[in-house]
Amino acid sequence: MIGYQFMGKMHSHAYRDMPFFFKTSVKPVLKAISGRKEEAVRQAAEEFGWESYETDWRKMIEREDIDVIDIVTPNHTHAEIAIAAAEAGKHILSEKPLALNVEEAKQMYDAVQRNNVVHMICHNYRFAPAVQYAKKLIEEGRIGKIYHIRANYLQDFIMDPSFPLIWRLKKEVSGSGTLGDIGAHSIDLARFLVGEIGEVSGMMETFIKERPIADLTGGLSATTDLKEYGEVTVDDAVAFLARFDNGAMGTFEATRFAGGNRNKNKFEINGENGSIRWDMENMNNLDVYFTDSPPGLQGFRTINCTEEEHPYAGAYWPPGHIIGYEHTFINLIHSFITGISNNEATAPDFQDGVINQKVMEAVEQSALNKKWMKIQI
Amino acid sequence: MIGYQFMGKMHSHAYRDMPFFFKTSVKPVLKAISGRKEEAVRQAAEEFGWESYETDWRKMIEREDIDVIDIVTPNHTHAEIAIAAAEAGKHILSEKPLALNVEEAKQMYDAVQRNNVVHMICHNYRFAPAVQYAKKLIEEGRIGKIYHIRANYLQDFIMDPSFPLIWRLKKEVSGSGTLGDIGAHSIDLARFLVGEIGEVSGMMETFIKERPIADLTGGLSATTDLKEYGEVTVDDAVAFLARFDNGAMGTFEATRFAGGNRNKNKFEINGENGSIRWDMENMNNLDVYFTDSPPGLQGFRTINCTEEEHPYAGAYWPPGHIIGYEHTFINLIHSFITGISNNEATAPDFQDGVINQKVMEAVEQSALNKKWMKIQI
Amino acid sequence: MIGYQFMGKMHSHAYRDMPFFFKTSVKPVLKAISGRKEEAVRQAAEEFGWESYETDWRKMIEREDIDVIDIVTPNHTHAEIAIAAAEAGKHILSEKPLALNVEEAKQMYDAVQRNNVVHMICHNYRFAPAVQYAKKLIEEGRIGKIYHIRANYLQDFIMDPSFPLIWRLKKEVSGSGTLGDIGAHSIDLARFLVGEIGEVSGMMETFIKERPIADLTGGLSATTDLKEYGEVTVDDAVAFLARFDNGAMGTFEATRFAGGNRNKNKFEINGENGSIRWDMENMNNLDVYFTDSPPGLQGFRTINCTEEEHPYAGAYWPPGHIIGYEHTFINLIHSFITGISNNEATAPDFQDGVINQKVMEAVEQSALNKKWMKIQI
Amino acid sequence: MIGYQFMGKMHSHAYRDMPFFFKTSVKPVLKAISGRKEEAVRQAAEEFGWESYETDWRKMIEREDIDVIDIVTPNHTHAEIAIAAAEAGKHILSEKPLALNVEEAKQMYDAVQRNNVVHMICHNYRFAPAVQYAKKLIEEGRIGKIYHIRANYLQDFIMDPSFPLIWRLKKEVSGSGTLGDIGAHSIDLARFLVGEIGEVSGMMETFIKERPIADLTGGLSATTDLKEYGEVTVDDAVAFLARFDNGAMGTFEATRFAGGNRNKNKFEINGENGSIRWDMENMNNLDVYFTDSPPGLQGFRTINCTEEEHPYAGAYWPPGHIIGYEHTFINLIHSFITGISNNEATAPDFQDGVINQKVMEAVEQSALNKKWMKIQI
Repeated sequence: MIGYQFMGKMHSHAYRDMPFFFKTSVKPVLKAISGRKEEAVRQAAEEFGWESYETDWRKMIEREDIDVIDIVTPNHTHAEIAIAAAEAGKHILSEKPLALNVEEAKQMYDAVQRNNVVHMICHNYRFAPAVQYAKKLIEEGRIGKIYHIRANYLQDFIMDPSFPLIWRLKKEVSGSGTLGDIGAHSIDLARFLVGEIGEVSGMMETFIKERPIADLTGGLSATTDLKEYGEVTVDDAVAFLARFDNGAMGTFEATRFAGGNRNKNKFEINGENGSIRWDMENMNNLDVYFTDSPPGLQGFRTINCTEEEHPYAGAYWPPGHIIGYEHTFINLIHSFITGISNNEATAPDFQDGVINQKVMEAVEQSALNKKWMKIQI
Repeated sequence: MIGYQFMGKMHSHAYRDMPFFFKTSVKPVLKAISGRKEEAVRQAAEEFGWESYETDWRKMIEREDIDVIDIVTPNHTHAEIAIAAAEAGKHILSEKPLALNVEEAKQMYDAVQRNNVVHMICHNYRFAPAVQYAKKLIEEGRIGKIYHIRANYLQDFIMDPSFPLIWRLKKEVSGSGTLGDIGAHSIDLARFLVGEIGEVSGMMETFIKERPIADLTGGLSATTDLKEYGEVTVDDAVAFLARFDNGAMGTFEATRFAGGNRNKNKFEINGENGSIRWDMENMNNLDVYFTDSPPGLQGFRTINCTEEEHPYAGAYWPPGHIIGYEHTFINLIHSFITGISNNEATAPDFQDGVINQKVMEAVEQSALNKKWMKIQI
Repeated sequence: MIGYQFMGKMHSHAYRDMPFFFKTSVKPVLKAISGRKEEAVRQAAEEFGWESYETDWRKMIEREDIDVIDIVTPNHTHAEIAIAAAEAGKHILSEKPLALNVEEAKQMYDAVQRNNVVHMICHNYRFAPAVQYAKKLIEEGRIGKIYHIRANYLQDFIMDPSFPLIWRLKKEVSGSGTLGDIGAHSIDLARFLVGEIGEVSGMMETFIKERPIADLTGGLSATTDLKEYGEVTVDDAVAFLARFDNGAMGTFEATRFAGGNRNKNKFEINGENGSIRWDMENMNNLDVYFTDSPPGLQGFRTINCTEEEHPYAGAYWPPGHIIGYEHTFINLIHSFITGISNNEATAPDFQDGVINQKVMEAVEQSALNKKWMKIQI
Repeated sequence: MIGYQFMGKMHSHAYRDMPFFFKTSVKPVLKAISGRKEEAVRQAAEEFGWESYETDWRKMIEREDIDVIDIVTPNHTHAEIAIAAAEAGKHILSEKPLALNVEEAKQMYDAVQRNNVVHMICHNYRFAPAVQYAKKLIEEGRIGKIYHIRANYLQDFIMDPSFPLIWRLKKEVSGSGTLGDIGAHSIDLARFLVGEIGEVSGMMETFIKERPIADLTGGLSATTDLKEYGEVTVDDAVAFLARFDNGAMGTFEATRFAGGNRNKNKFEINGENGSIRWDMENMNNLDVYFTDSPPGLQGFRTINCTEEEHPYAGAYWPPGHIIGYEHTFINLIHSFITGISNNEATAPDFQDGVINQKVMEAVEQSALNKKWMKIQI
């Protein structure tokens, strides 16, 4: 694994826990973790349970005892690492967004295809049992032709103007702001559940233009005593309209300025025969409505997706004994490892990463040019 | 009152009930109701408690015992009636949208100004105590500078393709579809709470293109045995992005194709110091979040707006004894009658109607031309 | 109508509004209202729309132009007024609890039976469309044999120790405290929905033993400047276990000391085939669960009981346009007036009042003697 | 660890995950797991990650490389194992209920005291961050003197009459039914948050008297092909009233016959200055109400207890990224291991187990004798 911040901890945990809950023919071994600061990465190795560490990621790729590279570094490094890993024949899991832009993303996808390695992008929310069950209901036609999706991803952790200028707020490191960090998740969920997006009209905004400069290597909780200010070069908030290839309408909004919404990743989908609602903050629940319920008995029902009928839920605890955020990663890792052991494609893969990136780039272009932009897949 | 369908019943009730709950120096007297079909309007007069009826609305305007004209007819008649009423010196309450287009709306506004009559447009949702209280909190600066409003008005009553082609689905009668019928309410609430909208980018869709032809004078529940089909000439759904003059971002969506949402008129507003959420289906409640709550104790609180601190609530029942949809009209009528008795302006008035119409027209133009449109007030 | 406080206003409103929403063969005429304080009752007559007033309730009973007596006075006067009204052949609606004790209640019931008048007790919550629909589902066997009811009626309006000693807090005037005032509603709902109660084990508590003395004729909002304190002689809170004749278990709790619960009248019923939940604060909604939903799709569904399938809802507004607390009274008055016009029994009637009183008396006895008490019907 | 069913899996997971999230001076090593069926326990050892296994629990106690005994066996074996383990100087974690009855529980408590080992009972719900935060608020006096607790623990997994006669339904193995299995959790939470219970009045019911006989060693999901039926000798449901030593009133209900409630462990506490609500199915949230909020702004606020101010939450993910059921065990194990490393008492310990058992026994006696029973601590 390359990187050791928040997502490094999360992925490490998922590799450790996955075999406890799932039987797979190959099991992950936590060989090595890499990071530039020796003391920090040494500590991370110990804390997260890795056998060894490296201070240069290229060493990881050279090592013959490593079959899988997991990329949890800041976004601007994804492409170089992934391409090198692919060339070395390693299977790759990359954090999202796949890259800084479509061009980079395509190069990554080319590399993994050329080298025939298993590749996956870490859109973990697909792997909530409730979301997987929503997918199943949609595929079975239970809500019919889809008319609408409205997806919001609302956070509030940078509302304070004294929150420092972390790497996620610098375009050269992160590519974009809320759009790539959380909007990307909504885009991925929408594509997973509704289908491909044909065109978008977007708007973006940076509410706080300058922030105190912090050590850019710091994680989410970086703090600073510095009095110097630097420019925020990414979006604080983004909203866009979308038209899907199948005719559905989409409205999307992602922001880090929605006070009181800590991690409100939610969507509602309306089809001709029913509707589905999901909200990450109560991620075990799925609200479902069917138009064919008897008159008088129609209403959204709240399903606690902890039964064996709900994908992945059977691996955990009895009905009603809920799971949390980290389990979306455990399920994703299960899918990734299964893909590796069967040498099968996984989803979402780097192709999804490319398409998600295309949607994001179209949103940015649209916001800049103030017109609708088409997405060419 | 001119018109006697769903809104005719609602307004009649509000005139009757208002004096029971509120003390006003002048009290409404239900002199006459008008409609083209004598038997139907006669019945309505009796059922709704009007002293007399007319079959030609021009008679109403000629009558000297009538001081106030309330227009609850289909949209394409609003302008002619309102202008005639204004010329005759009657005070006017008009249902929304004010007119078929901006041009008509302006003529109406000119007429009421020229004739110095009290005028009001029936955006009743402003008058829910929770919404009035939200306004108060915003005006007091409790949530600070506003970053976001996301407003949805979701219904599902025409999802069935066999639902007939009522007048609300014909552009020449209604002007627009969901946009003018329910989207207009969201626009009005946003302008009331956030401020004026500067530009919009919109999209519109008609999911069911043809429907069985029905008697166009029928109300919401019109049915038909006819086998003939006619074209739906208005939008089934509309969504748009908005930039407010004060820099806030808005996302709006109105649809009649969101299964399970009977009358889900809701919004969330995020400001620098807090957030506010409201949902018509639980209209007595207001969810409020403040960033200055102590760490650990931050969260949306649900206020049951039935206390004397909540505007209009003191006129009704003790705390926790909730009111309903009809009370928004009773409160609005109280405001209208108070305006008349004091010869003061009321809000929302025809000027609001004109501006709301401008926003709607900009949304339509934007959807047609696929570009952002500015609103000139 | 005899009495003119909170419930006087509520009943007056219901008599006025009922004919607007419902067609009935006889229509209520608001002949006279009665109260001891002339100025106050004169004002009430005007405000509530009564043709005349009396300062001695006996005059009301003597008047030949009055067919119906509605009793909304403090509880200790119900029996005398009702018996006199019955002897005079008037139909009677009485507020709950029916009387101070079972003995009085029985005398009232004897009187109305002997004189063959229509009688009703004002347990309005039965008349929420959602509750009526729950009754229908239960009668149709949709949830099967009932195992459980848990009913809470939680308020908080007297938590402040400086809240005055209103009549509802004096046993000689009110009979009991929370038990008779709000617990009685839960008992009535449970009997309506589940069946008769066989035995109870209860506990009662008075948390604030002394309060400032107020004018006992004051309503809910009585205030006082007096420095004198008097004893609270009724229960602040009551809880009891119940065994129903059909084997169901019941847990009941009523309190005025549950901070944040303004008028939380709620219940959940569990049967062998499903469950039902209701909460007055969202009174239009009914939550329903069926065990025969397909595996994976089981969950409580929230029905917005505003459709024509839901009893009484068709008389009001389109689906999703909610009604409020006062509509439970309008529906009840409709049932009462229909009973009078058909000379039919209504429900809940004085017999229900007697049985409810027996349950309350058993709870009080049980709390006093610390043992289970049986209810003999 | 002795036992390897549902709770065996859960505890194993918690021992593995705890050191990942928490720094402790000693770390658990998974030495051995024990069970009577060799093949099953061998598999469990492998699946759960134990170094070795035993088929006789006495061997575990003899082993010198084992310092801690974790008892997750059926209830009738707790006492014998715990006493033997204590005599051998092992620290002990026992599943709840502590024993079959008070007598056994006392012997266990005597044994651990006599041998000066660290002891803990596995009431995991105390360790939800939201519950810990509720405790903190109560201790700080934020809700003042407590008036009420109403606690429900509702499940539905044995509603189907064909569900087999598992060991939890046989009194000689489990001691009691819902009372000891889930009611015990509510009792423990109430004692933790409100204080000691002085007296109770209870009722118990067995709705399904006979069930198909299953292999009694089977876990929650035991199935059977047998046609033979056996008697259910424990309670399906229990409810009781309680008076706390500090004057608070309690109402408790635990049942496995509340359809639609998979694992609804919830409570509401009302104090003189505020209220607190919690529901395991949304276990990250705590609803809090304060009477000193400004008029107009009073209401229950929903706190997502995932911030660093919320006990244990800081060990996991960023705010809004929720945790699940299993984390209550991880937190509990952290507390247990910390207790061992510091040789300090932990809570809840065997003394709590004894007192909880006394409350349960009093409830049973009360239900049998139909009178209030006092609890002597």
